[in-house]
Amino acid sequence: MKKTILLSSLLTLFCLNLLSQDYYESYRKGWMEKAEQNKPKLIYSEKKPKQIVNIIPNENAYQGWEAQTVSPIDQFFNQPFKNKKEIILDFGEHITGYFSFSVNTISVSADGPLRFKFTFGEVPSELMTPFDSYKEGISRAWLQDEIVTVMHVPSTIIIPRRLAFRYVKIELLASSTYYDFCFTDMVCKAQTSARNTPERLPASTDPMIRKIEEVSLNTLKECMQTVYEDGPKRDQRLWIGDLYLESMGNNYSFKQYDITKRCFYLLAGLSDPNGYLVATVIENPIPRPQDKQFLYEYALLYNATMKDYVIATGDKETALDLWPVMKKQLEIVKNYLLPDGSMDFDKASREWWIFFDWKDGLYKEVAFSGVSIFAFKETYELAKLIGKEDEVSELPALIKKMTKAAHKNFYDKKTGLFVGAKDKQISYASQIWMVLSQVASKAEGKRALEALETSENVCHPGTPYLYHYYIQALVDCGLNEKAKEKLISYWGGMIEKGADTFWEAYDPNNDYISPYNFHPMNSYCHAWSCTPVYFIRKYPEIFQ
Amino acid sequence: MKKTILLSSLLTLFCLNLLSQDYYESYRKGWMEKAEQNKPKLIYSEKKPKQIVNIIPNENAYQGWEAQTVSPIDQFFNQPFKNKKEIILDFGEHITGYFSFSVNTISVSADGPLRFKFTFGEVPSELMTPFDSYKEGISRAWLQDEIVTVMHVPSTIIIPRRLAFRYVKIELLASSTYYDFCFTDMVCKAQTSARNTPERLPASTDPMIRKIEEVSLNTLKECMQTVYEDGPKRDQRLWIGDLYLESMGNNYSFKQYDITKRCFYLLAGLSDPNGYLVATVIENPIPRPQDKQFLYEYALLYNATMKDYVIATGDKETALDLWPVMKKQLEIVKNYLLPDGSMDFDKASREWWIFFDWKDGLYKEVAFSGVSIFAFKETYELAKLIGKEDEVSELPALIKKMTKAAHKNFYDKKTGLFVGAKDKQISYASQIWMVLSQVASKAEGKRALEALETSENVCHPGTPYLYHYYIQALVDCGLNEKAKEKLISYWGGMIEKGADTFWEAYDPNNDYISPYNFHPMNSYCHAWSCTPVYFIRKYPEIFQ
Repeated sequence: MKKTILLSSLLTLFCLNLLSQDYYESYRKGWMEKAEQNKPKLIYSEKKPKQIVNIIPNENAYQGWEAQTVSPIDQFFNQPFKNKKEIILDFGEHITGYFSFSVNTISVSADGPLRFKFTFGEVPSELMTPFDSYKEGISRAWLQDEIVTVMHVPSTIIIPRRLAFRYVKIELLASSTYYDFCFTDMVCKAQTSARNTPERLPASTDPMIRKIEEVSLNTLKECMQTVYEDGPKRDQRLWIGDLYLESMGNNYSFKQYDITKRCFYLLAGLSDPNGYLVATVIENPIPRPQDKQFLYEYALLYNATMKDYVIATGDKETALDLWPVMKKQLEIVKNYLLPDGSMDFDKASREWWIFFDWKDGLYKEVAFSGVSIFAFKETYELAKLIGKEDEVSELPALIKKMTKAAHKNFYDKKTGLFVGAKDKQISYASQIWMVLSQVASKAEGKRALEALETSENVCHPGTPYLYHYYIQALVDCGLNEKAKEKLISYWGGMIEKGADTFWEAYDPNNDYISPYNFHPMNSYCHAWSCTPVYFIRKYPEIFQ
Repeated sequence: MKKTILLSSLLTLFCLNLLSQDYYESYRKGWMEKAEQNKPKLIYSEKKPKQIVNIIPNENAYQGWEAQTVSPIDQFFNQPFKNKKEIILDFGEHITGYFSFSVNTISVSADGPLRFKFTFGEVPSELMTPFDSYKEGISRAWLQDEIVTVMHVPSTIIIPRRLAFRYVKIELLASSTYYDFCFTDMVCKAQTSARNTPERLPASTDPMIRKIEEVSLNTLKECMQTVYEDGPKRDQRLWIGDLYLESMGNNYSFKQYDITKRCFYLLAGLSDPNGYLVATVIENPIPRPQDKQFLYEYALLYNATMKDYVIATGDKETALDLWPVMKKQLEIVKNYLLPDGSMDFDKASREWWIFFDWKDGLYKEVAFSGVSIFAFKETYELAKLIGKEDEVSELPALIKKMTKAAHKNFYDKKTGLFVGAKDKQISYASQIWMVLSQVASKAEGKRALEALETSENVCHPGTPYLYHYYIQALVDCGLNEKAKEKLISYWGGMIEKGADTFWEAYDPNNDYISPYNFHPMNSYCHAWSCTPVYFIRKYPEIFQ
């Protein structure tokens, strides 16, 4: 996920806080120390290229490009390269780490430097789409092409940036007429903090479910670094929305809780002086928030993540330690709560980035109310788990009032669908969040989710992020068969299109969907897409 | 200087040697140890950019480009760069070393990587000529443009290759719309092994001579690394021809003899198994000869360099230690010596690279005989210095016979010029080497050198390398005023065109002359151009 720029109003809103005191002044140092203490150790392994491939145009292949085997890798090493000039290698799996290669001369010794372009791709199209056609928005430097000068031959060169890829294209940009050379070694020092091996699914499990789980685990593993990253290619950082879903996947697979704990403390320690959580923090070169990058529902999902964490671990101490943060986030909702229990969506829209999905034209009023109620409910559950319900004793009544108001404002009895007060758009997001917040009764939810499939002009999910909540909503309404069917068709659809890890954006009907209007910029190993492992493990009776 | 490819016949000639014994087998290890022991220590200093410049087209400027001051350097550091996108900085002097820079954000923190192109130039035109138009010959990777991805901001980045430059152009290739950034530091860690400070010329010295000497010293200093390099930009290695002239300059300026001694031992230790010196050796990644890169007169000039070295230092021990090498090089001449004292130029041409100058169409028969006689004479002088004349007692008679034959074969009494037996080309090279070998009497030499200036269709020098020998020839003939005048007009001409260090190739009438058919590939700080310091110091009565 990547921030949009919606800062002008936020800056106006929050700049006053720069002058005011730091809400957590006495806590921060301790929180940052605990974040450091819980930094997971990285596990390294050496990965080598597996085969030589060609990437050829194929209109039936994902994004129009197909990788085809050319020959085994022994046809690459120690072979004259000067006249070959270009090659594509396949490492056979998605890898996150540091890439190095060694070159040596053939026959006579070297008299001058070499120059290469290396292009790394998570999917084939990244190697075949000229990067320089991307001009606007987030940094083009995320795209993984590196120009390397090799001054001395033989030598071993390490590309300084951490890379995430399966394929690498090597282009020779300069050499000497005097000598030929070859590659003698090529290694990616792969890294992840996922050290545990989850138990295997029963042999009786549906093969596609097994495959989906495997790819989910790979996705999560690749994103588990020293924080839960959103994507190891881009943007290599912790977002609360990704934390929520990764932590959920981890609770049911690797069960490594140091990384979750570190993320809680980092986010708290780097929260805004006004007490609100910043949606994303960046570890390098030193841990820091992405200033003023506030995202409404992400701040709230911190509390929901903590609730799941306490249930998974029994670690009430962390929750108690960070309770001031969670209590403070409740204020965010209260700022927009009107006396009748409805929410001032327009005001919130001016003051916050409200996300839910990468989907142009999505109208978010309904989901906004839903997630607010959901956050209150999750926080109250958490408060009960850690004996703090007295401090949030107002929540049950508020939840009741808000639920009633949302139902009244958004439910269309005739169609059985939830739509906004001002905009009648029928969206997945609206129905999903009315179910998850339990504004919709189970029966209403079931009817609404089913109605989506027969209605016209429906706003569909654009990412696996919203699709996760869709599956959860189906489960919550008891639409178990549909939940399994949708999980298989959506995540299985990516696998059928060649996914080694699940993608940031996926629309079964549009291979080129991109939040950045440039599909090579998408992350193809994305945290928020890892949740099938959670569903498959948490609900074996439905999914296995 | 840079090798041409003339290997096919050489390979045929010498490959048999691969099967035979190593001529210096018992010596090599000791020689390489002594090379290592005499490796000079590098002296480091920090250089910072001095000003912001523009490089603008100007048909009257050297190679059509002129650097113009824009503003002082404080207008660069800590200034927003994102919208500026491109800048050229001037370090104010030629520097050899490792370049680093630091970037930081302005106001909000960074959310993504930066991508830059850095282009380093010794002269302005290098920054303005697209490098990718160069396709053939030596490696385009010598050209100093580097693409750098900066993944984290703030950070400090060191460009891995050693650079040689005065100007750097920075182009921003990618950034994020979200934040702006600035450069906070920029340093080149300059390196040289020149540690001594030569005494200053008397205040009465001609200002242009003082300036020429200063630029000579800078050129030599920049080329003095852990060997005498030919050029710190390209090809960063020891060639015997450059060693001869650099050592000569050093004998009259820095007087640091460890580097000279190291070069003698390296060349000996890395000579061919057949006993002949290879014209060039490369230090990195491990010291090695550039295999089979034999160059006729360079092998011979090793002996001449040693003679000068013994005179400068009194270090007979080194000369005695390496005497077997020098004796062996004499064979190279003897292989082409005919019974009447003339030389078989055609045969030698087939078997050796015979150089003398980068000059298309230069006919080398006369110079070839000249340098052969010169080498015999210098070697005999050396033998006398170290008490080895008995071992080369054949030389005086051979010199006499060869001198007589050359005079007979090449001297045209009518014109007073020396020309080839088969090709009557009138060249500077021919006259010069007839003077230096003393085939021409002083009077004949004077007449010949003067006649060059009034003859038609003369083949002029293409490089300061041959021009050095021209000045020496003028001095040897007693044409002192002309020597000074030519030194000032040639090397001073470079200064008038903006040289901070002297160039590899210089033709006063053609700014674009290039041995590589691409002037940005030229080295603009080139060892063999440093010799004015030698002339000015050795012959103060002429040049000061």
